[in-house]
Amino acid sequence: MATTARVRVRYAETDQMGVVYYANYLVWFELGRVEFLRGLGYDYSRLENEDGCILPVVEARCRYRAPARYDDRIAIEAWPMALRGSVLKFGYRILRESDDSSTGDATLLAEGETVHVVCDRELKRCALPEAVAARMRAAMAEHDAGA
Amino acid sequence: MATTARVRVRYAETDQMGVVYYANYLVWFELGRVEFLRGLGYDYSRLENEDGCILPVVEARCRYRAPARYDDRIAIEAWPMALRGSVLKFGYRILRESDDSSTGDATLLAEGETVHVVCDRELKRCALPEAVAARMRAAMAEHDAGA
Amino acid sequence: MATTARVRVRYAETDQMGVVYYANYLVWFELGRVEFLRGLGYDYSRLENEDGCILPVVEARCRYRAPARYDDRIAIEAWPMALRGSVLKFGYRILRESDDSSTGDATLLAEGETVHVVCDRELKRCALPEAVAARMRAAMAEHDAGA
Amino acid sequence: MATTARVRVRYAETDQMGVVYYANYLVWFELGRVEFLRGLGYDYSRLENEDGCILPVVEARCRYRAPARYDDRIAIEAWPMALRGSVLKFGYRILRESDDSSTGDATLLAEGETVHVVCDRELKRCALPEAVAARMRAAMAEHDAGA
Repeated sequence: MATTARVRVRYAETDQMGVVYYANYLVWFELGRVEFLRGLGYDYSRLENEDGCILPVVEARCRYRAPARYDDRIAIEAWPMALRGSVLKFGYRILRESDDSSTGDATLLAEGETVHVVCDRELKRCALPEAVAARMRAAMAEHDAGA
Repeated sequence: MATTARVRVRYAETDQMGVVYYANYLVWFELGRVEFLRGLGYDYSRLENEDGCILPVVEARCRYRAPARYDDRIAIEAWPMALRGSVLKFGYRILRESDDSSTGDATLLAEGETVHVVCDRELKRCALPEAVAARMRAAMAEHDAGA
Repeated sequence: MATTARVRVRYAETDQMGVVYYANYLVWFELGRVEFLRGLGYDYSRLENEDGCILPVVEARCRYRAPARYDDRIAIEAWPMALRGSVLKFGYRILRESDDSSTGDATLLAEGETVHVVCDRELKRCALPEAVAARMRAAMAEHDAGA
Repeated sequence: MATTARVRVRYAETDQMGVVYYANYLVWFELGRVEFLRGLGYDYSRLENEDGCILPVVEARCRYRAPARYDDRIAIEAWPMALRGSVLKFGYRILRESDDSSTGDATLLAEGETVHVVCDRELKRCALPEAVAARMRAAMAEHDAGA
């Protein structure tokens, strides 16, 4: 249902407060939605290059619960929340995983959403390729059933 | 009332869509609130170093209206929206200014808000130094009167 | 001769060591060379859009002398060092300026060079538009005379 | 001998030329040297937190051979080149790997070096903890033997 991407916190992502700078969570959100699309069998680069279809963000929101720190193991969960016409909404959860993976411990660091408008290369609204849209609706139905 | 910081879009801030990557607007928001504090006579670095007071973000939100492009002249308006206990909220508007400043033309590119919790170095909630809080309340009263 | 661009260190540019992360100096170099081109009467965006001419970097080098810190006033000096065929080399100096501009004090933080190959949109080598090349040679001659 | 870290190119790392912005290679270099230290059994965060030992960069150099593009699979090779007193030098190679890992194809995208001075928290030169220094010398001897 949700796809999980994994990253280590980079030194470049920290700031002088000793924690990850707040704008970087939006970069992680993007890694999550790209992995979600890849999990559907659809690379975002293929969407751009072959279908001429881009997903500019029209709204982004993040609620920060606990700070991420250098070298933390981060899990990024992403799932589609809504697809109506050319408007697409993703949800995200950012978690810190323990280095000892046997425990399965994870701490919620942040939650958020992004809203996208499906556009062609001239930045005009268009529809998602039907193959992607169908898989996304199936993923949403599964997610709702599981929730 | 609102303070305006000005930047040029950097090449590093663009992405392969040919527009500014969405996370960078949160960096611009930060430049705006820092200029707001400086306008109050209070550097953020002084707040951190002398008062031991930091302003971690607990929520950030941005609505994207039109894309910013390389070398655009960007104006960042920032103003305090609320200060209740140790919770502080800022509002922002991101505008593209014409290179011909005589026209005064400006296009709204994005709007947003951030919510902060005033903390000490151990990340425990604390109050803003009263000198800053008083000036911020005065700025908010002025802003409300002007709105 | 050298053109100077000015920036304030952004919070996003610091890391948990409390200083500016080393990759950001290359971003500053770029701001310097863009200002240099603008000073010649030639925007880099015009070079890309009208002349179809890009300047990918083939080598970059930076020597770090002293750390830059949050909110420091940074001056970026940039000048052309060589232009041979389609190969262009820039030199840079990064300085911290005192907030009290009357003193004129400045501390050298870093020095470096970048080497570029002038390319067309298909990433094939080409010549700089002659108008830019001529102004650049004039700037180099002036710089050498002044050195 | 060399340690290899792997990343996918992030959308945020591209610029409007459609390739990875040049400063980001220095971020990748850092990921490589961190993985190298981890491979020695020594986390960089442990070095900072337990040994109070930091590795600020005094020189960085990168030669760019071919552009990296969005979603490319990147391999970062890093190895120690020299350790003399408190001066430490790393070498790097950045490669693009084929998505079809069975072919083992890889294209060299960039090469570079960084020079570090081992410092304590007050930014004064100090020695690497002997345990790390010994393992690093062993790695260098192995690398030289293999080269």
